[in-house]
Amino acid sequence: MTRWFQHATARTFFAALALGLSANAVRGDEGMWLFNRVPKELLKTKYGFEPTDQWLEHLRLSSVRFNSGGSGSFVSSRGLVMTNHHVGADALQKLSSAERDLLEEGFHAKREADELKCVDLELNVLVHIEDVTAKVNAAVKPGSSAADAFAARRAVINTIEEEQHQKTGLRSDVVTLYQGGEYHLYQFKKYTDVRLVFAPEQGIAFFGGDPDNFEYPRYCLDVCFFRVYEDGKPAKMEHFLKWSEAGAADDELTFVSGHPGSTSRLNTMAHLEYLRDLSLPQTMDVLRRREVMLTNFSERSLENARQAKDDLFGIQNSRKSELGGLAGLQDPVVMRQKRAEEESLRKAVAAKPDLQKKYGTAWDEVAGSLEHLKEFRRELSLFEFGAAFNTSLFGIARTLVRMAEEDTKPNAERLDGYTTAARESLEQGLYSEAPLYPDLEIAKLADSLAMLVEHLGPDHPLVAKVLAGQSPRERAAALIRGSRLIDVEERRKLAKAGQKGIESSDDPLIGLARLVDPRGRELRKRYEEQVEEPQRQAYAKVAAARFAVLGSGTYPDATFTLRLAFGPVKGYEEAGNQIPPWTQLGGTYAHAEAHGSEGQFQLPKRWLEGRDKLKASTPFNFVNTADIIGGNSGSPVVNRQAEVVGIIFDGNIQSLVSDYVYSDTQARAVSVHSSAIRETLRDLYGAKGLADELGQ
Amino acid sequence: MTRWFQHATARTFFAALALGLSANAVRGDEGMWLFNRVPKELLKTKYGFEPTDQWLEHLRLSSVRFNSGGSGSFVSSRGLVMTNHHVGADALQKLSSAERDLLEEGFHAKREADELKCVDLELNVLVHIEDVTAKVNAAVKPGSSAADAFAARRAVINTIEEEQHQKTGLRSDVVTLYQGGEYHLYQFKKYTDVRLVFAPEQGIAFFGGDPDNFEYPRYCLDVCFFRVYEDGKPAKMEHFLKWSEAGAADDELTFVSGHPGSTSRLNTMAHLEYLRDLSLPQTMDVLRRREVMLTNFSERSLENARQAKDDLFGIQNSRKSELGGLAGLQDPVVMRQKRAEEESLRKAVAAKPDLQKKYGTAWDEVAGSLEHLKEFRRELSLFEFGAAFNTSLFGIARTLVRMAEEDTKPNAERLDGYTTAARESLEQGLYSEAPLYPDLEIAKLADSLAMLVEHLGPDHPLVAKVLAGQSPRERAAALIRGSRLIDVEERRKLAKAGQKGIESSDDPLIGLARLVDPRGRELRKRYEEQVEEPQRQAYAKVAAARFAVLGSGTYPDATFTLRLAFGPVKGYEEAGNQIPPWTQLGGTYAHAEAHGSEGQFQLPKRWLEGRDKLKASTPFNFVNTADIIGGNSGSPVVNRQAEVVGIIFDGNIQSLVSDYVYSDTQARAVSVHSSAIRETLRDLYGAKGLADELGQ
Repeated sequence: MTRWFQHATARTFFAALALGLSANAVRGDEGMWLFNRVPKELLKTKYGFEPTDQWLEHLRLSSVRFNSGGSGSFVSSRGLVMTNHHVGADALQKLSSAERDLLEEGFHAKREADELKCVDLELNVLVHIEDVTAKVNAAVKPGSSAADAFAARRAVINTIEEEQHQKTGLRSDVVTLYQGGEYHLYQFKKYTDVRLVFAPEQGIAFFGGDPDNFEYPRYCLDVCFFRVYEDGKPAKMEHFLKWSEAGAADDELTFVSGHPGSTSRLNTMAHLEYLRDLSLPQTMDVLRRREVMLTNFSERSLENARQAKDDLFGIQNSRKSELGGLAGLQDPVVMRQKRAEEESLRKAVAAKPDLQKKYGTAWDEVAGSLEHLKEFRRELSLFEFGAAFNTSLFGIARTLVRMAEEDTKPNAERLDGYTTAARESLEQGLYSEAPLYPDLEIAKLADSLAMLVEHLGPDHPLVAKVLAGQSPRERAAALIRGSRLIDVEERRKLAKAGQKGIESSDDPLIGLARLVDPRGRELRKRYEEQVEEPQRQAYAKVAAARFAVLGSGTYPDATFTLRLAFGPVKGYEEAGNQIPPWTQLGGTYAHAEAHGSEGQFQLPKRWLEGRDKLKASTPFNFVNTADIIGGNSGSPVVNRQAEVVGIIFDGNIQSLVSDYVYSDTQARAVSVHSSAIRETLRDLYGAKGLADELGQ
Repeated sequence: MTRWFQHATARTFFAALALGLSANAVRGDEGMWLFNRVPKELLKTKYGFEPTDQWLEHLRLSSVRFNSGGSGSFVSSRGLVMTNHHVGADALQKLSSAERDLLEEGFHAKREADELKCVDLELNVLVHIEDVTAKVNAAVKPGSSAADAFAARRAVINTIEEEQHQKTGLRSDVVTLYQGGEYHLYQFKKYTDVRLVFAPEQGIAFFGGDPDNFEYPRYCLDVCFFRVYEDGKPAKMEHFLKWSEAGAADDELTFVSGHPGSTSRLNTMAHLEYLRDLSLPQTMDVLRRREVMLTNFSERSLENARQAKDDLFGIQNSRKSELGGLAGLQDPVVMRQKRAEEESLRKAVAAKPDLQKKYGTAWDEVAGSLEHLKEFRRELSLFEFGAAFNTSLFGIARTLVRMAEEDTKPNAERLDGYTTAARESLEQGLYSEAPLYPDLEIAKLADSLAMLVEHLGPDHPLVAKVLAGQSPRERAAALIRGSRLIDVEERRKLAKAGQKGIESSDDPLIGLARLVDPRGRELRKRYEEQVEEPQRQAYAKVAAARFAVLGSGTYPDATFTLRLAFGPVKGYEEAGNQIPPWTQLGGTYAHAEAHGSEGQFQLPKRWLEGRDKLKASTPFNFVNTADIIGGNSGSPVVNRQAEVVGIIFDGNIQSLVSDYVYSDTQARAVSVHSSAIRETLRDLYGAKGLADELGQ
């Protein structure tokens, strides 16, 4: 399933910014709840369970956010972190080389000394939440222009983050909830010394590959383990999750603590139609072109395939997931339901003059902002969100160019990501030793430059300057081969040299970033003032209207912040067949054989040879009704005792519409079962030490 | 390389109709020459070779057109036809089933009695050519409106074809050359009883798959053999090609006789820019979405993969080839050259008042027609060219609906393809017993209906009617599962029932075709009157201007009519390396190993086990400078004695720009060598009888 990072990439690049606000009457086990707003009454009534504050705090402090995208949890007192293999894959890819392919072969550190330090992984634990809505809103003077409002809001947010960072040393982010309805300060303990402990072969972690992705029944050991270190030693954890002996039973209530990436459930109809008719189709075209390009690159040689593997996985994953979302929006049943909800809310608002006066214009304001966006969305996505320059090296060049300029401004005025408080995380990425492969970067850049020409034409003045008289392919090769940014030392040198150094640099990628930056900033400013700020204000009204009409007690759309979801283990009916909630280890082999044991259905040698070491009846994967989405990957699934019973790794195909609506008729979250994890570690991988450490 | 059919599909669907007219001074071995206009002087001067009329007639009558797309030749007195495996693949796919996969396994009929009758293959031999330009032009009154001119031209063409068909019993087509500069009557002997004799495994025919497609060096046995029958017996051939004992040597002059599909070399700049900026990018998006869709479908099961194999090959092939063409148009060097040529021609025209008066407006007229096209191209491609309804079953439904209506009109007024003369060929396709797989048809239709919604929006009145309140997926399933057209008898019944039968049919696909047809016809009429006819007239002026300024002695753009190309066997330089013109059978194994012998680089068992049976030094594939393009696949390559020295199967990556410009610096045509064909048949496949029959 979608890792948040990829999700964010597709979303951000194509300006499919999903702004919406939750005030639905929740259905079934719907809800991605804030940890400080858990629906205790509902849980008590429906399931007879009352989580205490201590229970919630323990679960929260045992939960981990992977900034590469995804979720995880602490599962031992010695800093052991469990997540999905596909969440760890980014780190595995970066630790791999032509000689050692950790994705393909897997990894197991028998002793702590053998654990491999990751290149640029940052893990966050949410240690403190504070509502700062009043403070943020007080900074915006009533009646300000959108530009002034945006600037004032940016200033107060940057300042709060900076003060809190100074005061506590913690990563401090002001997060926007209810799309502008509330602002909360989230403070994180940060781990940057993260080491790889164990990963199975990708052949079993992602068994069935793209064809099985988002399908059920499944047979995947989509799990891997890291360990966080402090001062060169395994970190001692006060909070970590115990391991359930039995795992969850049918119908047992389970909880999911993780970081759903992004939903758009409460978008206005105009906004959903914008996504359906413009934004998502374009996103799909870009994803497909990248998939085809990366597939072609991969097929040229085995080493090419290795280099592009994680990129390709991410693209295919997004393509499948976004397509499911788009199909949902193209389903008249879904749209009728959304339309009925909006009409009933608007009718209720219109019925009360005070509500109508305060909130009645909000829907048209959202629609208006989208009309503005339509005028410049293409250039925005190409130049500012980087769709035209699909290479990490351009990202690095632009970060250097922007950092030099932003550093000359007061902290309060700086762009997102360039504030003092965000500096450490920015540098963590900028100076990453992750390997980059020139041929792959050229292929990616050439394809995206060709797209730029297709979308704006070669005679567009800035496009002509970008190409400098060359074809997209020639230009891409010249830029990548001519640049020295592949060398991390060169990046440090340029960063140190400040704005003068940037201005005088003859690195062709720095030159490109300098060339594009003014137009990028102009487009971003326009976006902030004509789209982002008006939508924030409009959606705040929609939210207030919903609260007024439908009552509060609801959850905000997903924003890659920590949430609690819940629901029982439960099968479903599909095309007249009852799909049981469980699969078993033994079924893995039958599933391989049914697909000729070829390609993505080829099991790793260890699994073929070790078949007798496994109990065929051990539960392998299972489904529950918890409300999850991309970004939840790696979330622990726990029982009432907060013991691990599984780990989320996917949603089924019916769940793909949950960007827009939750349903529990057929939609399910898919997990690896805790028993399968322990048993395979111990009996198949010879990782008894690790198996014994789980939950201890 | 591209088969004409796929090429035509992509082109036609997206209205990238390439109208252009040749009057360039030819470069190197440039030229796809008409058999009645072979540049004898040039051949004599440059190569000291003078083909006689008998030589040309013999070669022409030994050449075959595959109406499924591609070229071939007669290579024995008993009607043996040689073509590429990838040209025969359509027939192989249609003869395959879940139990017998001829693409995968190959086929060899040891005796004539074992030869397999193809489902719907039609082969044509060009027996007569006549220039009817004067007659066609005389029918169009000067000063007529575009609509009247188009109707008059259609009437005279339909009438000539009908008369000639009646008179001779031959398939009689009036072909448009020089995009309206000339009209020739082409008469074909037709073979419809065509039987499969031999095909190797696709694993060696298309060794290296999509990654190696359009690359060089290559190692492919891209060949297969059919036999034409008359009255239930192998046809006795007066004309067939002898087999060369040695094959061609380095630098030896060779000839290619085949059917290049479509080029756009002499398009105006406005037309090239239209292709670059609108038509080709959209074509690419559609090809990529179909590639991804078919890949996903294929990966679900081995049987799915088998069902979609030939479709997927065609799409990938087009995608790679069109991308190469687009990259050429995005190359400023290419466009500068094209612009300079156009400017120089227009300057020469402007310098002479009589030329300026007669032809000076032509370029603006082409540009004007494209401005019209921009307004309705999307709907045209979706509704009339069928891009919204990507299933053969819709094609069948629409043919039935149109046939019923066209049959009520006088022959002279009927649409292309629905005239009396074309009836046999139309029915050959309509009543084809080619297997259709509901799940595959649903997947294809669902994806194209989703594209329809994306492009026009679900609220477009006709789109809403097409979907009938369902999502694209539901609607596609309902249409395919509800239709009886998969049964050929049902098609015959409906055809027999005429317009009344069509009107009262409750078949949902007939209903859909009825629903869409009026709008389709409207769009087609608009296309004919605002684009096709004006371009035909304008390009006729451009052609005349070229003749006036640059002299005649040139060749028309490719139109899937028989052409002669030539050039020596010759290597080339690439990135500082000298690429030799030959590969050898032994190199095949090294090439497999370099790619891990995996996936598309996995050799068939027979090749792995039979390695010792082959001489490592036998030439396998080779390149020459002949001017070819998609549609030439399967063309015989012959020496001065008109003996087979090879068979064209591809062009290298540098040749992909040859839709727009010919070059012989690096661009090369790629062939299988005659020696490799005979040796592998005899020594590896145990097909001694067939090997001995070659050329006899």
